[in-house]
Amino acid sequence: MQKIEIHTKSRPSAVYCGEGAFLAAQQFLGENEVFVVTDENVWDIYGEDVEYLFPKAHVCILPAGEKHKNKSSLFRILDEMLAAGLHRSSYVVALGGGVVGDMAGLAAAMYMRGTHLIQIPTTLLAQVDSSVGGKTAIDYKNVKNVLGAFYQPERVYCDPKFLQTLPPREIRCGLGEIIKTGVLDGALGEKILQNADKLTDLDFLRSLVTDCVRFKARVVERDETESSGLRKCLNLGHTTGHALELRYGRRSHGEYVLIGMWLESYIAEGEGVATAEHSAWVRSLVSLAEKKIPAFPNVRECVSNALLDKKNDRAGVVSVVLSKAKGEFEEYALSSEKYAEYLSRLEEGRR
Amino acid sequence: MQKIEIHTKSRPSAVYCGEGAFLAAQQFLGENEVFVVTDENVWDIYGEDVEYLFPKAHVCILPAGEKHKNKSSLFRILDEMLAAGLHRSSYVVALGGGVVGDMAGLAAAMYMRGTHLIQIPTTLLAQVDSSVGGKTAIDYKNVKNVLGAFYQPERVYCDPKFLQTLPPREIRCGLGEIIKTGVLDGALGEKILQNADKLTDLDFLRSLVTDCVRFKARVVERDETESSGLRKCLNLGHTTGHALELRYGRRSHGEYVLIGMWLESYIAEGEGVATAEHSAWVRSLVSLAEKKIPAFPNVRECVSNALLDKKNDRAGVVSVVLSKAKGEFEEYALSSEKYAEYLSRLEEGRR
Repeated sequence: MQKIEIHTKSRPSAVYCGEGAFLAAQQFLGENEVFVVTDENVWDIYGEDVEYLFPKAHVCILPAGEKHKNKSSLFRILDEMLAAGLHRSSYVVALGGGVVGDMAGLAAAMYMRGTHLIQIPTTLLAQVDSSVGGKTAIDYKNVKNVLGAFYQPERVYCDPKFLQTLPPREIRCGLGEIIKTGVLDGALGEKILQNADKLTDLDFLRSLVTDCVRFKARVVERDETESSGLRKCLNLGHTTGHALELRYGRRSHGEYVLIGMWLESYIAEGEGVATAEHSAWVRSLVSLAEKKIPAFPNVRECVSNALLDKKNDRAGVVSVVLSKAKGEFEEYALSSEKYAEYLSRLEEGRR
Repeated sequence: MQKIEIHTKSRPSAVYCGEGAFLAAQQFLGENEVFVVTDENVWDIYGEDVEYLFPKAHVCILPAGEKHKNKSSLFRILDEMLAAGLHRSSYVVALGGGVVGDMAGLAAAMYMRGTHLIQIPTTLLAQVDSSVGGKTAIDYKNVKNVLGAFYQPERVYCDPKFLQTLPPREIRCGLGEIIKTGVLDGALGEKILQNADKLTDLDFLRSLVTDCVRFKARVVERDETESSGLRKCLNLGHTTGHALELRYGRRSHGEYVLIGMWLESYIAEGEGVATAEHSAWVRSLVSLAEKKIPAFPNVRECVSNALLDKKNDRAGVVSVVLSKAKGEFEEYALSSEKYAEYLSRLEEGRR
């Protein structure tokens, strides 16, 4: 098990990656008051483990899926926290994927202005990305993650045992954020390309989890609240990804991020931000996980979703984070008309 | 106009006290996108000023009163922020008393994980206490301030012009927190006692605002999120004050804090935390603003409210912040039975 420390202004955080992390969480929590937030899918598989490891814990089981990442689920968690009589010194434990982690994190941030928070991510996506770094949120009025908080978990425990029970689609979803990190990091991108045949191998994925957490930890330490701009690099592919996700919403977050990176590599190339060669390198990484880019009918309608994105500060202008070269990114603003033109590349899909 | 800087871990904050502060806010905000949150009472008196100073601002006018400091008002603010298309770079301006400041502050903290926040407190209570230090919250399920965030305003503008239009009851409410600060500070307590005849004099109150902000700034700098314990001193009188406020709810927050300090001075004396002489000094300060302690029928029922207080960490135990000596405090835990005995002093009231 490896420990990766994250030193932010608000509070120190530590991520433990490797076999035995789940048990380590139990040892750390000891006799503290524990409130587990999870979802029905996770509970089906790991409910007995939770009851064995945390016999006195309160458990809040939410319906599974991104569509439940909303106000009503958030207040269900808060209501159950109140009913359980939690205090500031209690521990909220988010056991699940990104949806559970985002909502439990926001509930922990809000309840009495902040309880302790532990993340135990059970999906590849949550292990490599969403459980680390303190972003918490719910979707609201058809805007993704629009209500939330930056709230660092005290500890994150990434146990590879959870990856064994994931369906292939969940693995592909996590690969979206892994490949994003590979594009941002460069060296990691090369490692992924050279081991393209191992992308479903759990041992290899486990090593990628640690690589991604290390990369994200360095970014979050330098820009916890996305104020200096550095943290925006993590939004690579996300402007388009989120817009598609809101408009179509049938695929996973990671898949939309992959498709977003694919499209935005053409923006980088077309706007002269990146060379054609580099953008092709980005697409070669994307294609490892998303072999076929699907067709999106009436894709120009997504412009209105893109305009609502948090990254946009100016009216009528869409802001995208572009990969400029290995390890380099640029935040780039383009008019909504021009963005719509690029988007239309997705009308037909691509093999 | 005086500037008091507050250097916290999360972000720097500055409080401007004195004539012209309202205008200074307008100059600072300049051409930025502004979203004003206020209430009907404030709007009746200052609506024209706001329209003149901020002609392009979005304005959200809430019903006035603590009973509206709830989930529904919070989401009304958030809905209007979304409808106005605010971004992270927009400024939320809380123009009002503690209720407006607490809710607008929480909305600013949550919207896109944090927009800019400016507090322009219009009541004495908000100027001396609630607008400074970054505590934001709503009441929920009959628990005061149970959902919230620590979120520092970028700037606070305390303009004495607003004090001129306050009803006497609002002045007394503010005196509650001023006297609390006097008990905590000692030197300020003596200043108040020596100028007891000036407690309705606006010039004197103005100087007290600056004194209280300076004191609170020093506390918040050293313990922003109430984690080391120092900030808990600001909860003097508040365990009992909040419990009474929830149970009876007809007086102002400041009055309940005064009554709470009165009662808790007996706890400090009875438990041997403070001398009888010091507790009498505390009560002499309280009596400057709350000459008669009213009777509270069935006051023992408030124990259940006190047990829900954020300051309590252990089951069946009530935690109170006691004044030990001038400038010294102690967090003290007593059983709910014992606390109920002390509470019964409030059955009869006291002249």
